[in-house]
Amino acid sequence: MDNKFNDKQFRAHVLAEALPYIQDYTHKVIVVKYGGNAMINDELKNSVMRDIVLLNLIGVKVVLVHGGGPEISEMLKKVGKESVFIDGLRYTDEETVEIVRMVLAGKINKSLVNLIERIGGKAIGLCGIDGHMLKCETADPKLGYVGKITEVDTKIITDSLDAGYIPIVSTVGYDDEGHIYNVNADTAAAALAGALGAESLILMTDTKGVLRDKDDESSLIEKIYVSDIPSLVKQGVISGGMIPKIECCKEAIRRGVHKVFIIDGRVSHSILVEILSDSGIGTMFINED
Amino acid sequence: MDNKFNDKQFRAHVLAEALPYIQDYTHKVIVVKYGGNAMINDELKNSVMRDIVLLNLIGVKVVLVHGGGPEISEMLKKVGKESVFIDGLRYTDEETVEIVRMVLAGKINKSLVNLIERIGGKAIGLCGIDGHMLKCETADPKLGYVGKITEVDTKIITDSLDAGYIPIVSTVGYDDEGHIYNVNADTAAAALAGALGAESLILMTDTKGVLRDKDDESSLIEKIYVSDIPSLVKQGVISGGMIPKIECCKEAIRRGVHKVFIIDGRVSHSILVEILSDSGIGTMFINED
Amino acid sequence: MDNKFNDKQFRAHVLAEALPYIQDYTHKVIVVKYGGNAMINDELKNSVMRDIVLLNLIGVKVVLVHGGGPEISEMLKKVGKESVFIDGLRYTDEETVEIVRMVLAGKINKSLVNLIERIGGKAIGLCGIDGHMLKCETADPKLGYVGKITEVDTKIITDSLDAGYIPIVSTVGYDDEGHIYNVNADTAAAALAGALGAESLILMTDTKGVLRDKDDESSLIEKIYVSDIPSLVKQGVISGGMIPKIECCKEAIRRGVHKVFIIDGRVSHSILVEILSDSGIGTMFINED
Amino acid sequence: MDNKFNDKQFRAHVLAEALPYIQDYTHKVIVVKYGGNAMINDELKNSVMRDIVLLNLIGVKVVLVHGGGPEISEMLKKVGKESVFIDGLRYTDEETVEIVRMVLAGKINKSLVNLIERIGGKAIGLCGIDGHMLKCETADPKLGYVGKITEVDTKIITDSLDAGYIPIVSTVGYDDEGHIYNVNADTAAAALAGALGAESLILMTDTKGVLRDKDDESSLIEKIYVSDIPSLVKQGVISGGMIPKIECCKEAIRRGVHKVFIIDGRVSHSILVEILSDSGIGTMFINED
Amino acid sequence: MDNKFNDKQFRAHVLAEALPYIQDYTHKVIVVKYGGNAMINDELKNSVMRDIVLLNLIGVKVVLVHGGGPEISEMLKKVGKESVFIDGLRYTDEETVEIVRMVLAGKINKSLVNLIERIGGKAIGLCGIDGHMLKCETADPKLGYVGKITEVDTKIITDSLDAGYIPIVSTVGYDDEGHIYNVNADTAAAALAGALGAESLILMTDTKGVLRDKDDESSLIEKIYVSDIPSLVKQGVISGGMIPKIECCKEAIRRGVHKVFIIDGRVSHSILVEILSDSGIGTMFINED
Amino acid sequence: MDNKFNDKQFRAHVLAEALPYIQDYTHKVIVVKYGGNAMINDELKNSVMRDIVLLNLIGVKVVLVHGGGPEISEMLKKVGKESVFIDGLRYTDEETVEIVRMVLAGKINKSLVNLIERIGGKAIGLCGIDGHMLKCETADPKLGYVGKITEVDTKIITDSLDAGYIPIVSTVGYDDEGHIYNVNADTAAAALAGALGAESLILMTDTKGVLRDKDDESSLIEKIYVSDIPSLVKQGVISGGMIPKIECCKEAIRRGVHKVFIIDGRVSHSILVEILSDSGIGTMFINED
Repeated sequence: MDNKFNDKQFRAHVLAEALPYIQDYTHKVIVVKYGGNAMINDELKNSVMRDIVLLNLIGVKVVLVHGGGPEISEMLKKVGKESVFIDGLRYTDEETVEIVRMVLAGKINKSLVNLIERIGGKAIGLCGIDGHMLKCETADPKLGYVGKITEVDTKIITDSLDAGYIPIVSTVGYDDEGHIYNVNADTAAAALAGALGAESLILMTDTKGVLRDKDDESSLIEKIYVSDIPSLVKQGVISGGMIPKIECCKEAIRRGVHKVFIIDGRVSHSILVEILSDSGIGTMFINED
Repeated sequence: MDNKFNDKQFRAHVLAEALPYIQDYTHKVIVVKYGGNAMINDELKNSVMRDIVLLNLIGVKVVLVHGGGPEISEMLKKVGKESVFIDGLRYTDEETVEIVRMVLAGKINKSLVNLIERIGGKAIGLCGIDGHMLKCETADPKLGYVGKITEVDTKIITDSLDAGYIPIVSTVGYDDEGHIYNVNADTAAAALAGALGAESLILMTDTKGVLRDKDDESSLIEKIYVSDIPSLVKQGVISGGMIPKIECCKEAIRRGVHKVFIIDGRVSHSILVEILSDSGIGTMFINED
Repeated sequence: MDNKFNDKQFRAHVLAEALPYIQDYTHKVIVVKYGGNAMINDELKNSVMRDIVLLNLIGVKVVLVHGGGPEISEMLKKVGKESVFIDGLRYTDEETVEIVRMVLAGKINKSLVNLIERIGGKAIGLCGIDGHMLKCETADPKLGYVGKITEVDTKIITDSLDAGYIPIVSTVGYDDEGHIYNVNADTAAAALAGALGAESLILMTDTKGVLRDKDDESSLIEKIYVSDIPSLVKQGVISGGMIPKIECCKEAIRRGVHKVFIIDGRVSHSILVEILSDSGIGTMFINED
Repeated sequence: MDNKFNDKQFRAHVLAEALPYIQDYTHKVIVVKYGGNAMINDELKNSVMRDIVLLNLIGVKVVLVHGGGPEISEMLKKVGKESVFIDGLRYTDEETVEIVRMVLAGKINKSLVNLIERIGGKAIGLCGIDGHMLKCETADPKLGYVGKITEVDTKIITDSLDAGYIPIVSTVGYDDEGHIYNVNADTAAAALAGALGAESLILMTDTKGVLRDKDDESSLIEKIYVSDIPSLVKQGVISGGMIPKIECCKEAIRRGVHKVFIIDGRVSHSILVEILSDSGIGTMFINED
Repeated sequence: MDNKFNDKQFRAHVLAEALPYIQDYTHKVIVVKYGGNAMINDELKNSVMRDIVLLNLIGVKVVLVHGGGPEISEMLKKVGKESVFIDGLRYTDEETVEIVRMVLAGKINKSLVNLIERIGGKAIGLCGIDGHMLKCETADPKLGYVGKITEVDTKIITDSLDAGYIPIVSTVGYDDEGHIYNVNADTAAAALAGALGAESLILMTDTKGVLRDKDDESSLIEKIYVSDIPSLVKQGVISGGMIPKIECCKEAIRRGVHKVFIIDGRVSHSILVEILSDSGIGTMFINED
Repeated sequence: MDNKFNDKQFRAHVLAEALPYIQDYTHKVIVVKYGGNAMINDELKNSVMRDIVLLNLIGVKVVLVHGGGPEISEMLKKVGKESVFIDGLRYTDEETVEIVRMVLAGKINKSLVNLIERIGGKAIGLCGIDGHMLKCETADPKLGYVGKITEVDTKIITDSLDAGYIPIVSTVGYDDEGHIYNVNADTAAAALAGALGAESLILMTDTKGVLRDKDDESSLIEKIYVSDIPSLVKQGVISGGMIPKIECCKEAIRRGVHKVFIIDGRVSHSILVEILSDSGIGTMFINED
């Protein structure tokens, strides 16, 4: 047989191999926290959206949660907003949260909706204010309108999923006094995954996952039990900016999410690889086997 | 009987009188174009949102379409965007449409959602990109990204109404090449009302309605047949900025909307007055009796 | 602004103020015991029926229970039926219960249905025999066919409500031997409200409510806790014919009804005033705050 | 084999033979006009109700329409109402129609409901006022409140059938001015059968059916084509009180009812015999084979 | 009245008498184990199928389970398969189970489906492999592929019943290694009845039922309490081939089936007699009154 | 990056590329005629079943129609059935059709069901008798019980698809006289595809497709318009056993099937290749572009 033929067959084999993974995820909810390079590079962006549409099509209920990336800083700069730092952390005043909201819910969110619709998916752009999804309080008075989620109302998400849409969520919250808050996207994704009883939470990052030796990409830890996290922190394997991310993983699992993945968003189709194959490309957190 | 008692009864009579109007509108769709003073004055804003929630509660399917008002100009100024005028009309370049989109879909839209949710309604903030609702093309190449609607897909609106939400729509559109357009809110409201087979379209303005003598508020024309519009234009009764608005009324009726109202948004609860009483406060356009 | 205009706005304000009350009652069941003057005076009758249709329209599930009023005595007189009194109470023999049934289920009930249908509501006239709704036994052998309810089957009521009808119920019951009973309408309304898990039971009377001094209408007690009833009886505030009525209130609350109102049926739109405003016009019975 | 055994088997054979007839009627509507002896004799009454419950149980949608029989005259006599005759026909004044309504909708109707419920069926007692089912106008001004049906709204009937109830209908109608009318039960049954698109209309009478020689019961005509009616009238085979009854048959078939039966209500289980066997016991009217 | 007339009425009486029995079985599940003479004699076969279609039509959910009868032996003989006996019991090797499966699921099953469809019923032919309904393990390694049921998945049965079909089930099972098993039809019927929460299980046999004196057909025991079985076995009333059958009865009742009948399949319409009359023709097993 | 990594990504790319093909087929019906080598070789059989389960899982409604292959001849030989040939064609007498039915519906069909269930799909084994799906008459009296389909009732197929099952169909038919027929599987698949309004019909064969030069596998014709068939027959490109197969393709398209594929069943996953990629591996028949 000719090569072209072999290639076709090989592709069919690949598809056929996805069967058991699809069987595992049909009708289940996956929350994807989208961010980092995958949000900047156009080709990666496209590959993520295609993965999402494909998963939606084969019956997986995907919720996409996104953060803001560099576009927020850019916009703050454009309007000449000076950042105020308190104890080294940026203070979010009312004007800043307005800009954040506009960039997240008005620009990035609707661009992602547009991208998915153009590929042939049906998307709906929401934020934590719609259907009063994410209720917040001040995380820390010193930081201003940085929100800590106190209640999650998933009705608008499940209504959207039931009607066949892919909900795209900007992580902006509200409180009863009419204030708006900027919420950390990892935290919001974990809270939503927990409240939705999601099968998996996927955090897209710009790293390979958790590395035993952070300078050696080949030292990736493929599976971490939640109970092993403290000792990994103590050993310094989990450190710095990874710590709050891992806290989100822990929290999501505590609320009933079965599996949390930290995957490398710099690799195209990393979501499909993680979901539809046996050997993922990142680090998986689970409770126990 | 004491006065307090009389007052209670009078209030009950007023409620009871609303019965036939509620009977007329139950399960029907009303599209409200929200704008002008009603969008700036906090008390009026609140009164409009309460009217909308009340109508939703008594079984009317309300869709709120909003424009941008002064917040767009303000934001453009803030980012130091100079407006370019071509033949006296403002040119909307890509950066401008980005700002428009952020202000409309990120700020105003979500603020309205928040307001309605706080009153106890269930709202969902959408724009013409969600569910690819408003497909556009360039209205006039000289004006840049000012959109002319070429297709309306109401599915995301009817899905939202069926799930009990009040859809709030920012008038931003898309095209197949990935461009985003700013769409005139009156035109978008008329297009949506037509596509939804709405019972009524309500355009909130800062005038009493169509006045026979524009300097005499007591000369309000309460009912205009679509067939009478040309002669009213000829007589100069309809002129200036009112002309494109009246064109929207005509177009909506041509597409099957039964009644179009131009009402005075400066008056509190003007929507309820118009919908739930016999003697409205603005000008009604109909096809024929 | 002219007066006419002010009036319109005032009316709109009144409607708008009803919003939170409508929000409280949407999809909830209210059982109204209709009787007294409100059943005799044509204008009051009309006002009650309009209130009921309005409540039905705005999503409240209203069940109307009616008694017989003077029409039973009139008919008994017409057929020359002499009333027999035993220990001062009227004896209900088989012929009497036949007349009662005809007047209730054949005349009054269908007249109320007709009235509601003419206003534009959808009504269905039922009695305790339909769907074997009210099973009875003899309340007291000395009194003949006066029924004490032993079982309530609400299926025919909920089927009617689900299909959008306003059920109008004549308080006639049955037993397994094929006998028919006349049932006190207050008791039947309380039993139905309890079995339906109603939000409220409204008893229409010809008094202002419970008065601290029965000769002073300004001494109305606006709220009574069920636990306060015994002391009010002891003090003589609740006395005479009011006692069995208050027993019904107590019983309904014991079975789970949240609020019971004794309201003045002589006042037009008293139901709307009570349901759709903060300051009712009668006495409210509740369990505790 | 013993006799008892044979008997059991014979009974089983009888049941088995009903199979094709049940297959023909499943999910179809049958309107039964109930009257005459079958309404007076307790055993016959019971047998009719059992037949109805059985048909309902095996999936036939039965609607029972009843007239008043001697109970109306009895009640009129009781209240001392003198009948006025105009041109030999009884005049129905307002007081009379009140009595008629009470006897029909309050007494007979609810007794039939009770009977069916006691046998284990679910019945709902309605009249032409409920759900504004039978709209009327004066049949002849000289006769007062004798109604001619001008509109049939079957919604309340089909809602009842869909919820599994056997609707029992008193033939009382309404008009837009608030008047109540007495309607001939045969006519009402025919109108309902037509409006419901019934498979069959069964008129229970106190005759064997249409006899070729009215003095010879063995001369029963088993099948009459609608087109043969005029010549049968001319021949005098159809005459006297049979003529309006046959007009009803004709009218029902004209409106789409497939088969109309005039059956002998003096025979127990005559409905089952007619519906569930090949050789009926009355006269069948059809359009053509 | 003539005889023919009397006969008609008698038949109607018989039908009417079935009412309470139909009321008892509506919407309930009956599992019928079909076998013996009723499967060989064409007239009996026809009578059974008519009974099943009739029961299905009047709302009873009938599941027909069949064994193989003499056709299996005939086929084994045809292919020259020698039966091997181990300890006096026939050994079922792979080739035998293949033949069994073909005869059961390919011939007998589809013939029964055909028969029911021809009478006007809707039937679907299934075996324990479809929807993986009957999971098995080897009952006894010495006997080869004779299956003992370890799990029942009723979904394919209830899906079929809900869609209105009469499921006809061949008692062939599967295991996780891909083997096929022959399952005893009585046992399979009992297991299915238990898993379905059936109201009744009917075992058709070639005996009158359980006889106190096996040589005297008039000594039929009409009712046996499960608790009496051991003493009946001890007394020898239940003996030989009857013992495993009675074990099935016991097991079905233990799993929640209300009544189990052993009936005489040699008598036509024995199912209808048993289900639709008071005095059955076989032996009924119940738990207690 | 390491090779293993590249491989994972490549696999993800392959999955992602399937997106537009899945979008095209979601909710659509595909009828697969299964036969030839793919039915004999265990690995190929497994690969076909996996393809079917995968398609079912991603929302394609697959119906599998199978013929008999060599197992029928084997069984006929086993029972010593001599084949009679008339004019060179095998005569199917009653005994033969019995054997055919047993092998098809009892053995092959249930084995395929078992295979699919073991992979995790839900399958239901049917034949043309179930739900009276395939009504036949004698194709040619000289050939005996070889059926020509006269009516297709797809209800049992669509009921099965709606309940989520993969229907596996043996091509056995019935007639009104109770006869059973053997039906050619290609013809039956084409008739079912037409009656179901299938998107595609796939005929699995032991050839590469239609070859321009039958000795040169590289001369495969990838697309044939129905209108080109006659000239291809005339040229001898379509000849011999291919002619009736191509007739089936033509007939299916005439009845509304959009695309018919003749694919090479000797290649593993040939169905997936054909459905989920741009460049199929066989010959596609369409009406026109």
